[in-house]
Amino acid sequence: MATVRFVYLKAALHRQGVTSPLFRRQNSAVRAFSSVISPPSKAVVYDQHGPPDLVCKVTELPPVPLKDDEVCVRMLAAPINPSDINRIQGVYPVRPEVPAVGGYEGVGEVYSIGSAVKGLDKGDLVIPSPPSSGTWQTYFVKEQSIWHKIDKSTPVEYAATITVNPLSALRMLEDFVDLNSGDVVVQNGATSIVGQCIIQLARVRGIHTINIIRDRAGSDEVKEKLKKLGADEVFTESQLEVKNVKSLLANIPEPALGFNCVGGNAASLVLKFLKHGGTMVTYGGMSKKPVTVSTSSFIFKDLSLRGFWLQKWLTSDKAKECRGMIDYLLGLAREGDLKYEMELVPFDQFPTALDKALGKLGSQPKQVIKF
Amino acid sequence: MATVRFVYLKAALHRQGVTSPLFRRQNSAVRAFSSVISPPSKAVVYDQHGPPDLVCKVTELPPVPLKDDEVCVRMLAAPINPSDINRIQGVYPVRPEVPAVGGYEGVGEVYSIGSAVKGLDKGDLVIPSPPSSGTWQTYFVKEQSIWHKIDKSTPVEYAATITVNPLSALRMLEDFVDLNSGDVVVQNGATSIVGQCIIQLARVRGIHTINIIRDRAGSDEVKEKLKKLGADEVFTESQLEVKNVKSLLANIPEPALGFNCVGGNAASLVLKFLKHGGTMVTYGGMSKKPVTVSTSSFIFKDLSLRGFWLQKWLTSDKAKECRGMIDYLLGLAREGDLKYEMELVPFDQFPTALDKALGKLGSQPKQVIKF
Repeated sequence: MATVRFVYLKAALHRQGVTSPLFRRQNSAVRAFSSVISPPSKAVVYDQHGPPDLVCKVTELPPVPLKDDEVCVRMLAAPINPSDINRIQGVYPVRPEVPAVGGYEGVGEVYSIGSAVKGLDKGDLVIPSPPSSGTWQTYFVKEQSIWHKIDKSTPVEYAATITVNPLSALRMLEDFVDLNSGDVVVQNGATSIVGQCIIQLARVRGIHTINIIRDRAGSDEVKEKLKKLGADEVFTESQLEVKNVKSLLANIPEPALGFNCVGGNAASLVLKFLKHGGTMVTYGGMSKKPVTVSTSSFIFKDLSLRGFWLQKWLTSDKAKECRGMIDYLLGLAREGDLKYEMELVPFDQFPTALDKALGKLGSQPKQVIKF
Repeated sequence: MATVRFVYLKAALHRQGVTSPLFRRQNSAVRAFSSVISPPSKAVVYDQHGPPDLVCKVTELPPVPLKDDEVCVRMLAAPINPSDINRIQGVYPVRPEVPAVGGYEGVGEVYSIGSAVKGLDKGDLVIPSPPSSGTWQTYFVKEQSIWHKIDKSTPVEYAATITVNPLSALRMLEDFVDLNSGDVVVQNGATSIVGQCIIQLARVRGIHTINIIRDRAGSDEVKEKLKKLGADEVFTESQLEVKNVKSLLANIPEPALGFNCVGGNAASLVLKFLKHGGTMVTYGGMSKKPVTVSTSSFIFKDLSLRGFWLQKWLTSDKAKECRGMIDYLLGLAREGDLKYEMELVPFDQFPTALDKALGKLGSQPKQVIKF
């Protein structure tokens, strides 16, 4: 229990902007405190890096006085993304200093505002945009500039998850190859949320998708599900153990762009489909195997291999347009043109949700904590 | 002997533009023959793909009448490049139809010209530019447009070899990353001719080079030799078996561009040196091992992997500037600022030169046939 108390105290200090750079208020010397005080916040806190199910504790953080430009948001929902897990494990290249509150994206409603806040009112639906570490708590206090007001009719589970996965899919379709209606992309890990978003965002633009999935029980159902989302072709890896995978493409041209979130053989299959001069973008490595490429793929097939990391994109100049993109994606979600499976889990069942997100209970839908 | 006669006859027909698309004269219907006739040509001919030492025969091709716009060049020298060997083996993606005369670059002097040829005179030193299949013969008849007149003071061995390797090095330094004086590139296979050219062409531009060589007897001498050419750092692969290769770079910044002509571990070492956002260009695969890349190299280190193939570049729009680049490179060679080891071999010792080029006699300098 000593550890928990330690966490409690250090995190409380952080909330008051005393120690950690991540929690520290910017320009604190010139910023005044409002008379507004946040409620205490129930938060998932870790005070050291390690296995998330061991180092994460649900802890009550004390109330904090809001600075003039701060907003206290009552969080409604926040997902457990793989990158959240990697941050807690300490294996993510950019991560908050410990002790820290988990989570990076989420949605909430404005609960109270500092005296200098304009344009946000109590009850507004907001998301941190760009995302911000610390969304796994009931009351999240941050300066107004990070909060993006969104349409109140947005389903909370989509509002909570719109940035990390759907925005990655959108950027990857835009940033590497100029695609036109009728063009084709190929991807592995097509059942991942990014994969499902790629299928749907491509379809909106008239772009075809070739999708590679793992061999598993029920793969026919998975194929049907992806085709309902708009997938043109879905193959299991073993179906692609043929000399010329392109002979399987009856009606669509060779793809100029491919996406890899698996590595190993599944990455090689993406490369096999790509046309001369094509580009493969790696954004994940679920198999934990590296990408292996023949010399002739580079020289004679002129393939380019690149990588995508949303967090880097979000800190680049281009990220200025982030909120417009988010609004576009949320519009698609509201219209039912962008959907993916999620499980909303009450906060008091966080340990189970975490176990599911850690893969301890087999394949599970995306876990979204409901506060 | 039947085979040789068959080759002789088919190749003779080809020289007269009757059968193979590669030998056929363009617009033959509207082009007239001069009264000029070439001498018979002693040529390295192969009538089928296979092991070069088995399928190549030195054969005398009969005289051909020159068309008005053709030039007969008495070849002086032509190298045996690895790509020449791959074309004969039939493993090169673009290759002449058989029967064919070997060779792709070389130098000669104008021996006779068709009646419509202007600007070229007997005795002019010329190279085919862009290169053209069929340089391994004593008298090479081709339309004027392929012949590029060069400075007569150019040493024949450099004139014969200036395109395939030095031009590759020049393009690779130019086409992928904007480099400025003080920047750094890293390469494996640094003792290859392209590798040596990269060192020297980089030095001319004030660009530093980190060079990786195989572990072998005499590696200290090799290091000295490369440093004399201008190499800043030279490491054997085993020297780089350290946790952080960048700690070995005392005085120069991390490289933004790397070159790989080896594959396998040597390619991984190039990747290790590259800075965040860097690019590795693969132009060869001497180890016959693929390139293996971690997921995090793509995502978190933002590395890009590309390929370079000179023959593709030579058929692109950019190749219009080819001759200006060749003149620049030949100027450097004449000044002694671009040099590499070659062995000039009399044509009657072609079988030995071929064995050396095939690696049958251990590590050997570039073999250049002297006609």
